[in-house]
Amino acid sequence: MMNIRLVPNLTFDSSTDHFVLILYVLSGWGTDEKVIISILGHRDSTQRKLIMLAYEELYQENLIDRLKSELSGDFEEAAIRWMLDPVDRDAVMANVAVKNFVTPDIRVILEIACVRSPSELLAVKQAYHSLYKRSLEEDVAMHTTGDFHKLLVALVSTYRYDGDEIDSSLALSEAKILHNAIKEKAFGHEEIIRILSTRSKAQVNATFNCYKDEYGASITKGLMGDPKDDFLAALRVVVQCIRSPHKYFAKVLNDAVNKQGADEDALTRVIVTHAEKDLNNIIELYFQRNSISLNHAVANHSSGDHKAFLLTLLGAEDL
Amino acid sequence: MMNIRLVPNLTFDSSTDHFVLILYVLSGWGTDEKVIISILGHRDSTQRKLIMLAYEELYQENLIDRLKSELSGDFEEAAIRWMLDPVDRDAVMANVAVKNFVTPDIRVILEIACVRSPSELLAVKQAYHSLYKRSLEEDVAMHTTGDFHKLLVALVSTYRYDGDEIDSSLALSEAKILHNAIKEKAFGHEEIIRILSTRSKAQVNATFNCYKDEYGASITKGLMGDPKDDFLAALRVVVQCIRSPHKYFAKVLNDAVNKQGADEDALTRVIVTHAEKDLNNIIELYFQRNSISLNHAVANHSSGDHKAFLLTLLGAEDL
Repeated sequence: MMNIRLVPNLTFDSSTDHFVLILYVLSGWGTDEKVIISILGHRDSTQRKLIMLAYEELYQENLIDRLKSELSGDFEEAAIRWMLDPVDRDAVMANVAVKNFVTPDIRVILEIACVRSPSELLAVKQAYHSLYKRSLEEDVAMHTTGDFHKLLVALVSTYRYDGDEIDSSLALSEAKILHNAIKEKAFGHEEIIRILSTRSKAQVNATFNCYKDEYGASITKGLMGDPKDDFLAALRVVVQCIRSPHKYFAKVLNDAVNKQGADEDALTRVIVTHAEKDLNNIIELYFQRNSISLNHAVANHSSGDHKAFLLTLLGAEDL
Repeated sequence: MMNIRLVPNLTFDSSTDHFVLILYVLSGWGTDEKVIISILGHRDSTQRKLIMLAYEELYQENLIDRLKSELSGDFEEAAIRWMLDPVDRDAVMANVAVKNFVTPDIRVILEIACVRSPSELLAVKQAYHSLYKRSLEEDVAMHTTGDFHKLLVALVSTYRYDGDEIDSSLALSEAKILHNAIKEKAFGHEEIIRILSTRSKAQVNATFNCYKDEYGASITKGLMGDPKDDFLAALRVVVQCIRSPHKYFAKVLNDAVNKQGADEDALTRVIVTHAEKDLNNIIELYFQRNSISLNHAVANHSSGDHKAFLLTLLGAEDL
């Protein structure tokens, strides 16, 4: 599943080569980004954690703080994201998204709330407590109003059931509730939010299937409308994140490299957060949709250290 | 802290006396409620769990199922509640409350959501998943509408920060928000629900204190009004459960034994759920408020096996 090419049989006593390399990289001979990319881009999250601990012990300094002061721009952003523990990374990204509450960032919160499993979301919320001495829900609740408030607070607060059981008659009746609300363009309706935020993902997907079977078009079609309606766009993201997250992320990546005002944040976020999990599924769908490999798209789009780092995480550093 | 008088140095090999007693009680010589009370009323939750396991092993039968078939009425209710693991007990009580959605039962959900610590509430929600293959939030959301829906879903969903840190200026500004909403009688206002449901308990209490300091009367006073307004009553319960749960429970007990249509459920619930925790604090406040001890109030009010069992949990079986 993993794209990054790991150094095999890495041992973590302090005599290991890579510590010497880090020592070299960060100890005054000037920062060599290539070496940083080549070391950190080939370590999985456990290995990175051990490197962080060893670095702290050797230099009485936090490696992430050091990277922040040595690196810059999109590469800094990507390297820091990569070094964070996955759960802390989500908490940090959610916090940044909450503070800069604008449209593109809402996606970050929706992805964390809807793509992560219930127990992963819970772990992110626990990390948020530790990092910020506040809850994710109170920050989201304080920075939102209206329909966005109702939707986002419900989605980040909920602790969904995670089983596979499906209640078919419930799916049918809730597909009808959704259809009626959508027909009346009552997109912020309590019932839409209730169904999307509290039902298990298996149940919500069953409801989406019923919706399509009964009404001849997918719920996403029903949620099309004014392209400037940010709330409708958010609802579509929720549906996509629950129904087909890989397809959703393939689309985010394509938008990130192709749209005017390319979105380096989104590009970094999707590659960094999925490199150790399901990036291959996203890459496959990306190729199916766009007839160009993600590796080539990133190689064409990005540049410099950021490009080199992303290609390393994609396992395509030879490009 | 504990009122029940435990059997000291209880060992749990199957030769122990109490198994013989249980064998005697439940194996065909007829049910002797006094023996059941005397055994189970003196075992803490770990001991009860071990008894359940041993019973299951000896008789290939669940002890709770057996008790259900042997006992009846309020004593059955109390004994079953007592035998359940505390977290499962809360999940079961919440489920019953959700299904019979009437005013007195809303209190059960509010108590679980607002008195339990954030991690205890989380454990109850996990138990709810296991027991019912659904989430507590989806059941609460489906069975409620309007202001109750907004309040209860928010309270059961939230995962509050549990630290002691207080932001004084935030407390001041949110006291003002609460006061304005209350002044306009907008009791179901989004902001009231946001503050009560997402802020840490320490922060909410700081806000309540600011409210009193700034506006000369407690927030509970502000939430007085039509005594038939169930939503206002629910808001007062939320405030009391967060501000002074012991005082709140002392009041629930007093209502339970004194009001017309005495509330055996509430009496059982408060004594059973607090017997192993903080019942002494509640007993103390009960005496301060009512100039009669809770033991005597229960002895006067209840009867039969139910009375004997509650007095045993109160550590007052000699009454």
